Amino acid sequence: MLSFATDESRRLPVRIIEVSPRDGLQHEALFVPTARKIDLINALSRSGVTEIEAGSFISPAAVPQLADSDEVFRAIDRVPGVTYSALVPNERGLERARAAAVQKIAVFTAASDSFTRHNIKATVRESLVRFTPVIQGAKRDGMLVRGYISTAVWCPYEGRMAPQITLDVMRRLLDLGVDDISLGDTLGRASPADMRALLDAVMPHIEPVRLSLHVHDTYGMAVANVLTAWEGYGITAFDCSAGGLGGCPYAPGASGNAATEDVVFALKASGAPIAVDEELIVDCARRLSALTGHPPHSRLSQVPPSHIRQPVLKV
Amino acid sequence: MLSFATDESRRLPVRIIEVSPRDGLQHEALFVPTARKIDLINALSRSGVTEIEAGSFISPAAVPQLADSDEVFRAIDRVPGVTYSALVPNERGLERARAAAVQKIAVFTAASDSFTRHNIKATVRESLVRFTPVIQGAKRDGMLVRGYISTAVWCPYEGRMAPQITLDVMRRLLDLGVDDISLGDTLGRASPADMRALLDAVMPHIEPVRLSLHVHDTYGMAVANVLTAWEGYGITAFDCSAGGLGGCPYAPGASGNAATEDVVFALKASGAPIAVDEELIVDCARRLSALTGHPPHSRLSQVPPSHIRQPVLKV
Repeated sequence: MLSFATDESRRLPVRIIEVSPRDGLQHEALFVPTARKIDLINALSRSGVTEIEAGSFISPAAVPQLADSDEVFRAIDRVPGVTYSALVPNERGLERARAAAVQKIAVFTAASDSFTRHNIKATVRESLVRFTPVIQGAKRDGMLVRGYISTAVWCPYEGRMAPQITLDVMRRLLDLGVDDISLGDTLGRASPADMRALLDAVMPHIEPVRLSLHVHDTYGMAVANVLTAWEGYGITAFDCSAGGLGGCPYAPGASGNAATEDVVFALKASGAPIAVDEELIVDCARRLSALTGHPPHSRLSQVPPSHIRQPVLKV
Repeated sequence: MLSFATDESRRLPVRIIEVSPRDGLQHEALFVPTARKIDLINALSRSGVTEIEAGSFISPAAVPQLADSDEVFRAIDRVPGVTYSALVPNERGLERARAAAVQKIAVFTAASDSFTRHNIKATVRESLVRFTPVIQGAKRDGMLVRGYISTAVWCPYEGRMAPQITLDVMRRLLDLGVDDISLGDTLGRASPADMRALLDAVMPHIEPVRLSLHVHDTYGMAVANVLTAWEGYGITAFDCSAGGLGGCPYAPGASGNAATEDVVFALKASGAPIAVDEELIVDCARRLSALTGHPPHSRLSQVPPSHIRQPVLKV
């Protein structure tokens, strides 16, 4: 393990990219009414998260759950200091995002060809070609662009991915002008040791502030990976979802996204400067649970509110 | 952080002390029939765990759920290589344990006086005086003795405990002849940073092989703490409970014990040599769930069986 974290990196505010309105709701069978989505995003905006993935401009036929993203973006309160982003798959999607005054778009590829072939019917290289005009168009309009790399550690078809492969995809995305990179442990199968191997490979090639981790909690290692990345590598941005909303499509019924409230609690308990109010996130998780009909996946949502606040330290 | 783990320590087999039959069932409102307890312990015996806390010789009036421990110990299959232990609070309990041919007893105190006052109506010092004849009697009869130290990191009444206080209690227990020590994060509130502070203090005073960690998953940090202890400190024994059975009495409804299957999966994924079959543990978690009426707390129990086995690595 190389050492990337410094006293300075540990004083940087940790940022949460809240993905429940997009990555969470996309995996639900039902359509959540537009007004409820807007309420949810407005509540999340007041929790201290710095970015909210508020929708997707994928074809409504492909993802009907988010067919109302145009309307959602027009109606939400835009709180200063919070970035509202959306997934954009192609130039048609970019037009819609532009019309809805989206500040930041996200494009998505993966480390594994087998995965992109199943997921977006293209090789990784083909997906990058497809995204090139989207990224260029977004940059021309002054939008920020985030690049997702799924299966950055494990692929459901290819097994463990060599860090060099993920690094190669990351460098291509950066060459295309992407502002920041999100490395996804799509299967939730990465151990902290796997995560260190990946971060040892990629960190010399990107400023830490441009990198976020998108960990899944399928096997219970999400919090361990977040703390490994923050404590050991100075990574200060994490994608997560209130209540852990968002299934793992490769293990139906299992939990997917790391729960924002658990990640925030663990970071605070570890001394990270992070301005997110985990109790407000638990409220959002309960709200989502009422909408989706299944209970939050987080540990914090099971703890009585009086036990959440971190006590004054007596040493 | 000091460095205690070595290449050698990482080759030592990791041992699981399975506590669901005692610590788990003790927190349930209902009485599980004796025959079901025996079936459960026999199933756990075949999973690869090295120790099973199979019962308690506390007064049946105080813990009616385990009033049948005498009968349980007489009827279980004793698999070679597995140690069957029981909680023993006093000399009367030791007599019962002796009559049931118990191999190993566990005595229990805490780092915090406020906690022991609430829990066993004694200061820590008084509890040690009370346990002295129990430990001496057990040793005289050739039994092994484990010493539990609850609130080793955080106390619900006193807040964070200074590592020196926990170290002091540990040294007293070792002086009394206790064979091994279990450090308990009773509240589940310890971060890996807290755990490192504790282990930095205690590790110079005990052989690693005599130490186990008893972590709770109340706030989702159990796996992170286990991996910190194994990777950084060479700790090779962990107390856990199939399905995470066992509530946190200080946060009703929250999860308590770390789930054995999640701990085993994470250790294997990190390269630890551990002979426990996590699929058999999930079977035991389901069995417990059927007995107690509430679902397992673990992540692995939500994953389809076909996704549990760790795939062949392709690097």
